[in-house]
Amino acid sequence: MVKLWEKGYKIEEEIEEFTVGDDYKLDMELIKADVLGSIAHARMLNKIGILTITEYSKLKYALIEIYNNKNFTIKKEDEDVHTAIENYLVSSIGDIGKKIHTGRSRNDQIIVDIRLFTKERMLKVLEALLELLNAIHNFAMQYEFIPIPGYTHTRKAMPSSIGLWAGALLESILDDIKLLKTSYEINNQSPLGSAAGYGVNLNIDREFTAQLLGFENVQNNVLYVQNSRGKIESIVIFALLEIVFDVGRISNELILFSSEQFGFFTLPDEICTGSSIMPQKKNPDVLELIRGKVSVIEGNLFQIFGITKNLISGYSRDLQLTKEPLIKSLKITYEIVSISTLVFKKLRVDKERCISACTKELYATDSAFELVKKGKAFRDAYAEVAMNIDKINIEDPIKNIKAKKYPGATGNLGLRRIKRVIESENKWLLSELNKFKSRVNYLLK
Amino acid sequence: MVKLWEKGYKIEEEIEEFTVGDDYKLDMELIKADVLGSIAHARMLNKIGILTITEYSKLKYALIEIYNNKNFTIKKEDEDVHTAIENYLVSSIGDIGKKIHTGRSRNDQIIVDIRLFTKERMLKVLEALLELLNAIHNFAMQYEFIPIPGYTHTRKAMPSSIGLWAGALLESILDDIKLLKTSYEINNQSPLGSAAGYGVNLNIDREFTAQLLGFENVQNNVLYVQNSRGKIESIVIFALLEIVFDVGRISNELILFSSEQFGFFTLPDEICTGSSIMPQKKNPDVLELIRGKVSVIEGNLFQIFGITKNLISGYSRDLQLTKEPLIKSLKITYEIVSISTLVFKKLRVDKERCISACTKELYATDSAFELVKKGKAFRDAYAEVAMNIDKINIEDPIKNIKAKKYPGATGNLGLRRIKRVIESENKWLLSELNKFKSRVNYLLK
Amino acid sequence: MVKLWEKGYKIEEEIEEFTVGDDYKLDMELIKADVLGSIAHARMLNKIGILTITEYSKLKYALIEIYNNKNFTIKKEDEDVHTAIENYLVSSIGDIGKKIHTGRSRNDQIIVDIRLFTKERMLKVLEALLELLNAIHNFAMQYEFIPIPGYTHTRKAMPSSIGLWAGALLESILDDIKLLKTSYEINNQSPLGSAAGYGVNLNIDREFTAQLLGFENVQNNVLYVQNSRGKIESIVIFALLEIVFDVGRISNELILFSSEQFGFFTLPDEICTGSSIMPQKKNPDVLELIRGKVSVIEGNLFQIFGITKNLISGYSRDLQLTKEPLIKSLKITYEIVSISTLVFKKLRVDKERCISACTKELYATDSAFELVKKGKAFRDAYAEVAMNIDKINIEDPIKNIKAKKYPGATGNLGLRRIKRVIESENKWLLSELNKFKSRVNYLLK
Amino acid sequence: MVKLWEKGYKIEEEIEEFTVGDDYKLDMELIKADVLGSIAHARMLNKIGILTITEYSKLKYALIEIYNNKNFTIKKEDEDVHTAIENYLVSSIGDIGKKIHTGRSRNDQIIVDIRLFTKERMLKVLEALLELLNAIHNFAMQYEFIPIPGYTHTRKAMPSSIGLWAGALLESILDDIKLLKTSYEINNQSPLGSAAGYGVNLNIDREFTAQLLGFENVQNNVLYVQNSRGKIESIVIFALLEIVFDVGRISNELILFSSEQFGFFTLPDEICTGSSIMPQKKNPDVLELIRGKVSVIEGNLFQIFGITKNLISGYSRDLQLTKEPLIKSLKITYEIVSISTLVFKKLRVDKERCISACTKELYATDSAFELVKKGKAFRDAYAEVAMNIDKINIEDPIKNIKAKKYPGATGNLGLRRIKRVIESENKWLLSELNKFKSRVNYLLK
Repeated sequence: MVKLWEKGYKIEEEIEEFTVGDDYKLDMELIKADVLGSIAHARMLNKIGILTITEYSKLKYALIEIYNNKNFTIKKEDEDVHTAIENYLVSSIGDIGKKIHTGRSRNDQIIVDIRLFTKERMLKVLEALLELLNAIHNFAMQYEFIPIPGYTHTRKAMPSSIGLWAGALLESILDDIKLLKTSYEINNQSPLGSAAGYGVNLNIDREFTAQLLGFENVQNNVLYVQNSRGKIESIVIFALLEIVFDVGRISNELILFSSEQFGFFTLPDEICTGSSIMPQKKNPDVLELIRGKVSVIEGNLFQIFGITKNLISGYSRDLQLTKEPLIKSLKITYEIVSISTLVFKKLRVDKERCISACTKELYATDSAFELVKKGKAFRDAYAEVAMNIDKINIEDPIKNIKAKKYPGATGNLGLRRIKRVIESENKWLLSELNKFKSRVNYLLK
Repeated sequence: MVKLWEKGYKIEEEIEEFTVGDDYKLDMELIKADVLGSIAHARMLNKIGILTITEYSKLKYALIEIYNNKNFTIKKEDEDVHTAIENYLVSSIGDIGKKIHTGRSRNDQIIVDIRLFTKERMLKVLEALLELLNAIHNFAMQYEFIPIPGYTHTRKAMPSSIGLWAGALLESILDDIKLLKTSYEINNQSPLGSAAGYGVNLNIDREFTAQLLGFENVQNNVLYVQNSRGKIESIVIFALLEIVFDVGRISNELILFSSEQFGFFTLPDEICTGSSIMPQKKNPDVLELIRGKVSVIEGNLFQIFGITKNLISGYSRDLQLTKEPLIKSLKITYEIVSISTLVFKKLRVDKERCISACTKELYATDSAFELVKKGKAFRDAYAEVAMNIDKINIEDPIKNIKAKKYPGATGNLGLRRIKRVIESENKWLLSELNKFKSRVNYLLK
Repeated sequence: MVKLWEKGYKIEEEIEEFTVGDDYKLDMELIKADVLGSIAHARMLNKIGILTITEYSKLKYALIEIYNNKNFTIKKEDEDVHTAIENYLVSSIGDIGKKIHTGRSRNDQIIVDIRLFTKERMLKVLEALLELLNAIHNFAMQYEFIPIPGYTHTRKAMPSSIGLWAGALLESILDDIKLLKTSYEINNQSPLGSAAGYGVNLNIDREFTAQLLGFENVQNNVLYVQNSRGKIESIVIFALLEIVFDVGRISNELILFSSEQFGFFTLPDEICTGSSIMPQKKNPDVLELIRGKVSVIEGNLFQIFGITKNLISGYSRDLQLTKEPLIKSLKITYEIVSISTLVFKKLRVDKERCISACTKELYATDSAFELVKKGKAFRDAYAEVAMNIDKINIEDPIKNIKAKKYPGATGNLGLRRIKRVIESENKWLLSELNKFKSRVNYLLK
Repeated sequence: MVKLWEKGYKIEEEIEEFTVGDDYKLDMELIKADVLGSIAHARMLNKIGILTITEYSKLKYALIEIYNNKNFTIKKEDEDVHTAIENYLVSSIGDIGKKIHTGRSRNDQIIVDIRLFTKERMLKVLEALLELLNAIHNFAMQYEFIPIPGYTHTRKAMPSSIGLWAGALLESILDDIKLLKTSYEINNQSPLGSAAGYGVNLNIDREFTAQLLGFENVQNNVLYVQNSRGKIESIVIFALLEIVFDVGRISNELILFSSEQFGFFTLPDEICTGSSIMPQKKNPDVLELIRGKVSVIEGNLFQIFGITKNLISGYSRDLQLTKEPLIKSLKITYEIVSISTLVFKKLRVDKERCISACTKELYATDSAFELVKKGKAFRDAYAEVAMNIDKINIEDPIKNIKAKKYPGATGNLGLRRIKRVIESENKWLLSELNKFKSRVNYLLK
């Protein structure tokens, strides 16, 4: 197999091992993106007169073969997806295959691949996220007015509700989606034409390839294209991190709130596992792994930061190492979100234990405000209640949480309005998915 | 001095030291925000009938006194800004002062303060950033067609230009601004009414206070308000980090490119310092400190993540520790951006050294494409040039970079279009600044 | 005030602000170390004939004045401790003051200061840590055989004990001490003579100053001295981090185990605070702040990594930024450890709630092993017990934990042996403290 | 296949995928360690009368079969190495296979595996590190007195030498080895007998298994064993990180110093690669990947911190995720160190370019000290030289660096003493390797 940069001298095996690493395996994820990028590039080369229509057609059909070939693999000797595909083209259609690389470099080619791959996976993550939002929303509706203690400092504080608790998660994820969409937008720029970072002396039509590939616009400055490698990855991973951060935090809480001491929730058998030594155990492994994997993505973010920090302008080989944390973060986020949907679909609330946990000290603040309504200054009401905690009347906990009626409080969570926001996000998703698919279909036609 | 939660038992001094820490100093930054939040809250309490118009007026004027008093300080015994202000109110207007805390908690009060403070500082950062963009833009225009080697792998690769190099930075910062604006939007939500995280049994009008304070909307779920503490801070710091990451990277490059071996740039004396032992030295300390401080903000982001990870829903005291990394990150970013503007205003390009660094191997790729234009397959052209590196004709380097004409290449950087984008960002900034100031003036009237 | 590198041109104020920053405040911590380093250096200069005995004496007494002057301050214009002290010397004893800087640079001077400062604070941390170990040890002895549920997956698993729980912490900290001592050893090397990183053409006697200052040895290679700045800081902070990680984890557990749902522990009023809105609250703020501050130190470690990564050999100004995370980490660790000692001295165990939490499922595994002892294969015994969880006999929980007699199990914790290890660490500490103090006294004599 | 904790209910496939993940692949690395741990445990069970000598023999031979079977694999259905091996035992020797798990849990079994695996890999890393030290030492000896500019602030500062530069690296790695050995010692403790973290009601002989497996001692407290999972991993990874930090920093410097602008070093073709678009390129990819992979390990350290922070005492499933960062960090460190040895064996110094880079400003400080020797105060000498930089005489650069004679300076690097330290570290390594191998041989006999 010929490497794209082969010039004759021998590379020692150990060093090849070190430089290629698992890259050829990771690149398996990028085959389809590389094919799509190559078809668009070839079509543009035809448009500007570098490839004849026959050459373009041959290249295109050979590339579509690769796209549809589930057994196409990248061998270690190939080094990466670009070389594997170019080698295949040369062996399949001869010298024409050599022409595909005209006017581009592996430096911009890999960025095309990663952008397309990232775009597709981000849409998948968003799809899963909207399913999760729906599952949480159903859960919130179902148990909206079940009272639980609200905690501050991990101490019982004031009356709360399952609805409030679940609604908080809904709104948090909706904020995450804002960030996800901004990072999606920043990723959605076409790098093609950057070549090695300094352009080429050919009349490349960058707008044309951007449109063919469905990018929102051309990423203009050819050097910025290279400098943004790693940077855009960090922005995407950060958006993912905010999502899993929320989900991980709630997993931690579910572990605690479903434990013997709390018992607010019952975890379904399906997401629990046993112990090899303790016959009685039903462990929340799934939730623990969600919690733990948040830190994996956090570590990935800092790998990207560390890898790219203070690199001088233009491509450096270090950037190869940004692939793994990106690909893994997208995969793990998708899994965490999907699994969490399952959790919320099957999660049960133990109404009795919830209510019985609502002991009278929770009502101290409400009692103080009752005195305020009767004209006491809050500070004096506070002092009076503090002296008489034992005498607080336990009111009906359900009535209490329903009585708090201003927006965002337990009696007025706005769940219906939130449903509409979820639906509007879904519309946006469907439109983006359609645009994406129609571009792919067009290129493969 | 009375602490808001004082109930009679003695707190050991060492523990007070530990829990208060430098908080009372940090809170000095929040005095104005706390005053504004308090005025809006008081006005709302008047609207819903908790405070009479006289009570409200007295509170307001006492609060405005604090706002205008440059010597107002928070003492260690006060613990925090909220207590300092409430103590002042009580001592100044008596029992009415005790009523200000009705229907809120320090838990939502501090979030109001931080959101307002952050909002104002983000606008300042954006203002400084737009000045930086203008300085870089001027620099790019002035030296647009001065050729320098383009590097890949820290090795001479292809012809580049000062214009391309500076333009890459411009576009990178414009992407950062997208992120900055999204994080600004997420921060721009009113937390008031969350109280301790579970609402209160009073008819708080949250929309009203949100409008008074100029927040874009009410952050709905009262528990999410608390859970978003630290989260929104992380989103803001991340947006700052992307900015300083770009600027830090360019500082590192300036250090290198202005060193004896490169000499592309001349740093003005004003940003250099000397050595205590080496009489000849002119050191780029300012650029080194910019570079180093990026890692300070990165560490701050990590601190926020670490502090908030897996806290259970509702306030925990750990959150107090999110203040310092936020406040410092905003401050450092502002400084880095301002100082960088100074650097770009005074940075000079050494045209001769730039041109003389453009040695012939830079033109190898262009030569290969000349063969391609004559009909050679790229791979064959590549092989031919590789064998004959010595025979490459050095063409006129300025002509070469001007000849690359497609969008984003050295001959077509789109600097004018970029100028228009900067101007439109500036318009957005001015409109936000005006909205902000008009709200402040209204509250203080 | 003259700056050490002043050469005539004007430095803009904004830039001075940026480069000096809070450095002059941080350097207040280093005054004594700088004085000691200067006395030792002056004495060596006298020994090799650069200073006369009179000059040395004058310098020494002027330096001792600074050491004993509690009001000696570093002004912003001084920039740093070295300049402040040199300026003082010149103004106090005239031209002789200028001679102190012969054969050294601020580059090695600051490293001397930091090493001495770090050394002294590490000994303080160790002193506090041994007090903490004693407090935990007393606690473990007092409540050794009080049974609590042992958890896995945050689920009741098997019988545990307060002794086992506290003993685990003891052994963990003893492992931390191994790391602390190694980092102490690596820090305990004399940098003097490195000058700016390349030595000087004078006959400096490095062994002599190392001995005077009580360093274990000379850090040999003059360039390594500079390259190790930040590196040694990271090693020290990592050792501190392992300590606070342990303590922070236990704080998190104390928060949980002293909550309403668990109730194993009672926190004393002294370490709790109240709420501004909820009259009934007693919050574990101190423990929450311990937990949170762990992440501050973690962030500090990553700041150091980020600041120093890929700096080229020799001093860079970025290194100035390593001071703050080091000084703060030492301070916070000391506080966390001291406060935790207080916590353990006052922590009470609620024996009743501990015992009543020991429900029968905890004994499932023990039951299975009883069947094993009677000849069943473990896997079969496991299956049998799993089918009959309800029929497990609750045995006497105290008898149960006492019956596990092999080393490290609840009935045989080895607390007496651990006490002896603590005592031997204490002996080492006292010997190091004595060596340190005797060196200081000798220099100030 | 039966899972160790199978109790009858169905686990959904998606969840199995999520919980098992790539664990079964990672566990392939642990097969030998698990076998050794199992043989030792079985022998102990025989000693205390749980297994007959025949049962023990059968178990042992079946286990040795696994050890020697290169094709033994862990299938996804097996979940992990422990189950795969136990399943094999049961299918190979029937009911006796079920007895191996008596008195242990997967919780302590995995820790045994990881400790043994880590121990063996740390010895390998140290072996490679000593080879690297020898390669650098040879390099330092060969080019000891070749002068290069010494830099501060990335600016020419004072005369340096290849010997000084390489010697700095030698001493830095020798400090790393101190840390590596401390972390080796902390890892070298036997966890067996902890079982699920709370011991078992059998007369386990922990000293005996510790000795059989070659651990230095028993890790006493059975709960600390579990709590130290992740902790010890972080300590090991930190020691690795310090090593790669040094090597990565030097790689960055080699990239720069071998670039066109510096040219001090010539990189051999064997460690360089070409470009797919630029025919003339010879890129230092290997060095860039070394530099980049440092951040991968740094990210791994963070992952460990994040995963383990604030877990409550006793096993949590999150801990499974500590395996991958540990195993990868050990692998990457080994590769980085080995490849760096190759680099230093083949690295060449371009003497001419080194000398010609030694321009006169480097000698300014030396000139100032010459004036000092003649009686000038340093500050005055400094001022005089600063005014007359142009008049500095360039002395013979080789003579200059040889003339600095005090310990650690260019003329007195102590390379011979360093060689002896390397040799003594090698002796320690050989002794540890021998102990380790003799234990393995004994168990497999």
